[in-house]
Amino acid sequence: MKFAAIGIGFLAFLAVLLFGVERSPQKEQVGKIFNEALTEGQCYEMLDVLSNSIGGRLSGSPQAAAAVEWAKQTLQSLDIDSVYLQECMVPHWERGEKEQARILSDWIGQEDLPVCALGGSVGTGDMGLTAKLIEVAHVEDIAKLSPAAVKGKIVFLNHPMDKAHFDTFHAYGECTGGRYNGAPEAAKMGAVGIVIRSLASGMDDYPHTGSMGYQKGIEKIPAAALSTNAAEFLSELLKQDPDTKLHLRMTCKQHPDALSYNVIGEIRGSEKPEEIVVVGGHLDSWDLAQGSHDDGAGTVHAIETLRLFKSMGIKPKRTIRCVLFMNEENGQRGAIKYAAEAKAKGENHIAAIESDRGGFAPRGWKVDAATEGQIKANVDFISEWIPEFREYGVYDVEHGFSGVDIKHLKDQGTICLGFYPDPQRYFDYHHAPNDNFDKVNRRELELGAGTVASLAYVFTEFGKAE
Amino acid sequence: MKFAAIGIGFLAFLAVLLFGVERSPQKEQVGKIFNEALTEGQCYEMLDVLSNSIGGRLSGSPQAAAAVEWAKQTLQSLDIDSVYLQECMVPHWERGEKEQARILSDWIGQEDLPVCALGGSVGTGDMGLTAKLIEVAHVEDIAKLSPAAVKGKIVFLNHPMDKAHFDTFHAYGECTGGRYNGAPEAAKMGAVGIVIRSLASGMDDYPHTGSMGYQKGIEKIPAAALSTNAAEFLSELLKQDPDTKLHLRMTCKQHPDALSYNVIGEIRGSEKPEEIVVVGGHLDSWDLAQGSHDDGAGTVHAIETLRLFKSMGIKPKRTIRCVLFMNEENGQRGAIKYAAEAKAKGENHIAAIESDRGGFAPRGWKVDAATEGQIKANVDFISEWIPEFREYGVYDVEHGFSGVDIKHLKDQGTICLGFYPDPQRYFDYHHAPNDNFDKVNRRELELGAGTVASLAYVFTEFGKAE
Repeated sequence: MKFAAIGIGFLAFLAVLLFGVERSPQKEQVGKIFNEALTEGQCYEMLDVLSNSIGGRLSGSPQAAAAVEWAKQTLQSLDIDSVYLQECMVPHWERGEKEQARILSDWIGQEDLPVCALGGSVGTGDMGLTAKLIEVAHVEDIAKLSPAAVKGKIVFLNHPMDKAHFDTFHAYGECTGGRYNGAPEAAKMGAVGIVIRSLASGMDDYPHTGSMGYQKGIEKIPAAALSTNAAEFLSELLKQDPDTKLHLRMTCKQHPDALSYNVIGEIRGSEKPEEIVVVGGHLDSWDLAQGSHDDGAGTVHAIETLRLFKSMGIKPKRTIRCVLFMNEENGQRGAIKYAAEAKAKGENHIAAIESDRGGFAPRGWKVDAATEGQIKANVDFISEWIPEFREYGVYDVEHGFSGVDIKHLKDQGTICLGFYPDPQRYFDYHHAPNDNFDKVNRRELELGAGTVASLAYVFTEFGKAE
Repeated sequence: MKFAAIGIGFLAFLAVLLFGVERSPQKEQVGKIFNEALTEGQCYEMLDVLSNSIGGRLSGSPQAAAAVEWAKQTLQSLDIDSVYLQECMVPHWERGEKEQARILSDWIGQEDLPVCALGGSVGTGDMGLTAKLIEVAHVEDIAKLSPAAVKGKIVFLNHPMDKAHFDTFHAYGECTGGRYNGAPEAAKMGAVGIVIRSLASGMDDYPHTGSMGYQKGIEKIPAAALSTNAAEFLSELLKQDPDTKLHLRMTCKQHPDALSYNVIGEIRGSEKPEEIVVVGGHLDSWDLAQGSHDDGAGTVHAIETLRLFKSMGIKPKRTIRCVLFMNEENGQRGAIKYAAEAKAKGENHIAAIESDRGGFAPRGWKVDAATEGQIKANVDFISEWIPEFREYGVYDVEHGFSGVDIKHLKDQGTICLGFYPDPQRYFDYHHAPNDNFDKVNRRELELGAGTVASLAYVFTEFGKAE
């Protein structure tokens, strides 16, 4: 699919080169959008404010409310056709006091490890819990253990991300099942808690959080993540001293669901306003850092797209709508609400673009849709534009996962388009205390905005391929 | 040239897809090399030592001597066929005490600006110099001024890099003439000194150094660089207070040329040992930082290439030679000596690969050679391999500048190949006090090593295209 489509794009481009077909004004517009994003861009300044003045903004937190207000005001300042909030109820989980994971070993004595609770975990009680450990490499291995070996212990899931994949999201995807399902799987076998190796590309001292879940009827046990360095160390220590115990203390709390909002702004289409192109990112983030890459970057990519349309005087033929989704990280409630309302209103979302892979230099697009035919037609359609995009590093268009928020629109016939920047650094920061503004490069962020805005422009001009 | 060549590569790849032609063992080897670089790579650890234990290593400095010894020992540890030093005499310039650039203004009083001497500049004398300023936007504008307007003043060359280019090297190339020739051009008009806006992609508080030159018979005046933020500020101040003076103090010294070395290691070819493929980077760096991207990254890419060959048991058909050039930054004496000796010995360098654009995620190759025909044939040849490389982010092959060190081999029939990683961040660090190890991402560096090693493998297996 991938290469065939790109091949066709290339043949079209070769034809242009060889036979001197002229560039359309629309094709020239792509370069102009990138030029504006790089020379007059505002997304870096926006992200500075969201990161440094608001910071981490977990659903239900005061900072999430501040982010909603900031996003609304920022969109209003663009003088676009409408800006509004869409209500949604979101989970409200709080981490509580700084977590503690202390090794107790007859071999090395005690040592505190970098740790954080996984999002949604129960606490340990004020005095914590203390238990021996049993290490497994994969979540599927837990059920293969004897219950006697697990009972009363803390399961230590030590599953490293595979470094061999260029696409770190591929490696991440191989590990997320363990983070999400590890706790109930361990509880079924009688474990009293679970600690996992952080899902990070490399070796570092940061614990990386992320969502986890429980299963009905299965005891809720505490779940936490150790830094990759700590996991490596603990694994070695267990070889030396299998009786090593871990003291784990977390004071997390689940509050009642809270009222929050998706923030939406749009420019109505001049010719087919009923056909909608969404550009989106998620406004919430985890609480350990500023959430600058995840997903401050996507948030400002989406806002910047509308700002570029306005500042460049682009009047889109179809409606372009910026949707800043709430609660992507631990519930997707905003996305579910948005898709449900779209369906209830009978809105026609022809395409949805999501930026939620960080603010890095662009490489391409992941295209998804409800049918094989839609996927192929739209991979081919975008590939025709690659000669314009390629100058800015965008060359790779293929079928793939689009994004957690927009996927809910897929069964409404929407073409779902996931912005794919270079993925090498994302999992150094993802869900960790270092996902801060200082990790964002201005030009990389701006090129991402140019990429998102350009593709949004193509779809507002031409609609989706059928 | 570029797209036609890639188009041919794609047609070949489509043929494979459509007709099921099998991958050759050589094509499979490319993926294996990348896999090894990402999972068992050593280049990051090497760069840690070069950066943090040796640091900045300007030609003629004790640190440059330490780098020579480190490189020799590191190559020897690989158990390759030979490791040796090649003598060359290098310029020995010293920055001296920390430079001072102090604004003296009746409007704002005094303020010190971030400044550094350009490499090769004369000093100001111990008491410095103090003069009014005259601002120009381009080096060509200096000669258009009236001598009366320039006489006794410091020329302020405020030429920003053009942000619109995706390829920051393009923007850099538009500004280097000013840095190199600004001092003699200003001196011809009677200026007593020159300060330039740093060649940096963005706005920051770091002065970026770089080489400058003088002309025979023209007075040598001091030349320095201000940070981009300082240049912007000074430009605004001059609008408010054109009589603003600058006090500039630099104690730079030019010593007699010093003895130094290129460091060379090779694995002899099993079938055609007389055909040589060079992989190289430069061992020297500027003195303001650790030189981790420029060109610690290229240095370890080259060493890692030989290490990968050895650890993977690859026995190259042609000789592969790692050349770590001395004095790229301010003289290219190592490269000139290497090319001269190659010619004198009648060696047959079929190809030379240089990595000197930083340790960022790969995007492609710039191909150069003595004739149009050689360029086209080798762009086409490499393009045939793009389907193998593309999975690791390498998609872009075109005619372009290969590298400062290997270009001296071009007239010997050598195909010159410049590694082209993503260029967005390079000029945030280039020649500045922040070009340190903490700015290097492990996976990006390793992907660069995989890219260099894979292309070196292709040329050692198949030779150059004629």
